[in-house]
Amino acid sequence: MVVALMTDFGTRDPYVAAMKGVIASRCDAAIADLTHEIAPFDAFEAAWFLRAVWRWWPAGTVFVCVVDPGVGTGRRILAGVAEGRFFLAPDNGLLALVDGASCRSVENEAFFPPGGSTTFHGRDRFAPVAAAIANGTALAELGPPAGSIVALDYTPPVYGPDSAQGTIVSIDRFGNCITDLERARIAFDTMRLRAGSGSIGLMRTAYDSSREVTFMIVGSTGAIEISVARGSAESVLGLRRGDRVEVVKT
Amino acid sequence: MVVALMTDFGTRDPYVAAMKGVIASRCDAAIADLTHEIAPFDAFEAAWFLRAVWRWWPAGTVFVCVVDPGVGTGRRILAGVAEGRFFLAPDNGLLALVDGASCRSVENEAFFPPGGSTTFHGRDRFAPVAAAIANGTALAELGPPAGSIVALDYTPPVYGPDSAQGTIVSIDRFGNCITDLERARIAFDTMRLRAGSGSIGLMRTAYDSSREVTFMIVGSTGAIEISVARGSAESVLGLRRGDRVEVVKT
Amino acid sequence: MVVALMTDFGTRDPYVAAMKGVIASRCDAAIADLTHEIAPFDAFEAAWFLRAVWRWWPAGTVFVCVVDPGVGTGRRILAGVAEGRFFLAPDNGLLALVDGASCRSVENEAFFPPGGSTTFHGRDRFAPVAAAIANGTALAELGPPAGSIVALDYTPPVYGPDSAQGTIVSIDRFGNCITDLERARIAFDTMRLRAGSGSIGLMRTAYDSSREVTFMIVGSTGAIEISVARGSAESVLGLRRGDRVEVVKT
Repeated sequence: MVVALMTDFGTRDPYVAAMKGVIASRCDAAIADLTHEIAPFDAFEAAWFLRAVWRWWPAGTVFVCVVDPGVGTGRRILAGVAEGRFFLAPDNGLLALVDGASCRSVENEAFFPPGGSTTFHGRDRFAPVAAAIANGTALAELGPPAGSIVALDYTPPVYGPDSAQGTIVSIDRFGNCITDLERARIAFDTMRLRAGSGSIGLMRTAYDSSREVTFMIVGSTGAIEISVARGSAESVLGLRRGDRVEVVKT
Repeated sequence: MVVALMTDFGTRDPYVAAMKGVIASRCDAAIADLTHEIAPFDAFEAAWFLRAVWRWWPAGTVFVCVVDPGVGTGRRILAGVAEGRFFLAPDNGLLALVDGASCRSVENEAFFPPGGSTTFHGRDRFAPVAAAIANGTALAELGPPAGSIVALDYTPPVYGPDSAQGTIVSIDRFGNCITDLERARIAFDTMRLRAGSGSIGLMRTAYDSSREVTFMIVGSTGAIEISVARGSAESVLGLRRGDRVEVVKT
Repeated sequence: MVVALMTDFGTRDPYVAAMKGVIASRCDAAIADLTHEIAPFDAFEAAWFLRAVWRWWPAGTVFVCVVDPGVGTGRRILAGVAEGRFFLAPDNGLLALVDGASCRSVENEAFFPPGGSTTFHGRDRFAPVAAAIANGTALAELGPPAGSIVALDYTPPVYGPDSAQGTIVSIDRFGNCITDLERARIAFDTMRLRAGSGSIGLMRTAYDSSREVTFMIVGSTGAIEISVARGSAESVLGLRRGDRVEVVKT
């Protein structure tokens, strides 16, 4: 059993270390760091990160996702399950991309140690509930079905017979620009991509040039990515997260 | 059993990885990262970090704290115990805020592998001693009682009937300014805080505004914090670590 | 059993988290982070990092080293063994400093899950092969002997009777400049070091001054290092990785 942590806390401050202590005090699960470098309060970034990783982890993994600008307000805490993995996150869009997640609203205060803070639910609510799930607590004990959950503030892609429109949803440390256009849902096989003022062709592998060459590729999540061999697509092309892109049949 | 690491080594250099290898070679404890991002040589920061986290970890945890500008000098290495948790740190103030710690001076060279360096005690002294403690070695075997230990270079807070004076002891990545004024030791219930040129009121929860609002709050360690909803108290108010603050009865 | 990870992926992006999931899904080994902060594509830095740490880990450790600018090209993946530790890395010099490593070329596609990407071999090739090794797979099953492997692009040191010439191979976060000159191979006991325009004396311990003093010292890996007490050798002396240095008998 693994409890896997994703936060925007960084590791300079004591927040992650306190959460790990609570979990280690309450269950025997291994504790894994996914990331603590989500940009502060950026639930959108966290949602795409989680989408890229959760299916690679074994059934039984408990994902604890604390990117929580609304801590201390009435926002709900969700406990979800999808394909045998468990998820804890604030109801702010963070779980919106976990396909098929069945969510509860965590409201049973018996799982919150008494005297908890209003500002650090990561330690005082998420961590003890994660340990409880790792120890076998059924999600139904945590609270009622969540009903509809908060969506991401975002326009999903549109797939047509001759074109598809999408968005750059993340940019990695190498400058690769990852879109939300899934190759498997694009209806045509030969295509070019338009991003900013550029028109970019498709390549099969990431690297077959010793020169700076721009290309698009089906990336490791199955989505279209924009890359520059020997360079950063972000800086060469001036792209940013949120930019609209289009692939067109050729 | 967990060995929990706190250093100022960062993770770009091989120091932490070497320490982990020594621990993994000598005991079966799980190894946890607390942080490796303490500012270089900043024992003050490390002491406050440790204070915020240690009680959340289970009894038996071995905290290995290497922020050690005096490595290679005659500074002592302390092995302490408090409430069932163990602590290893240089005698430079790092353990000064662990209430009730009973410390030994680690001097028994039988626990230091032969041929160790003068510059990297993290690998050559702290890690093997931590593994020995995790394996059940009594602290009394490590060396004699430490007697008085080095204090933090710092003026503790003063609590009066109508006011209390303290210090900003840390600033987190969100810009929250954490003081050393503990709510439980403040004698009055209605108050304002003076920091720099500002006078700031108390709120119960961190976030009940969509505008940039400055407030003080009882933070997750029980101490008074200064926050700005939708902003950074550090930059909005121009506060820095070490700044003096005062709460006054209203 | 431990699987120890070294990458240039950072932790903001989901790459490390996906690799950890694959490993956790396929074996029961503990997963340790060595570093994910190798400079992007910098196999030289990775090779020196690995050299500094691998012998400190127990026999049976599986080192997974993904600093891989050539992913998607014909570059080989090496699986090596040295002194009971196992190593997986691209054939780009990363393993060149592991003395005595016996390497295979990983070519048996039965160990690669079907449908893997061309851009993320960390998740689709390195991680599943690491889990296989942790589960007891013999390296001989992975592929044929590698024969000669790619060397580091680098001039090794020259040791003479009255002098030795070497290179600054890394600079740590404290500004210490680490050379490749091993003290044990220098034929004389009294010496000075020339770096840039400076001539620097040898000290026994790192720190015996309250002033800014430049000195050389035998560092924790047995190599000559250049340090500045109370300061950064890198900035005080203007040194950079790759700079040539010389020690001369005095």
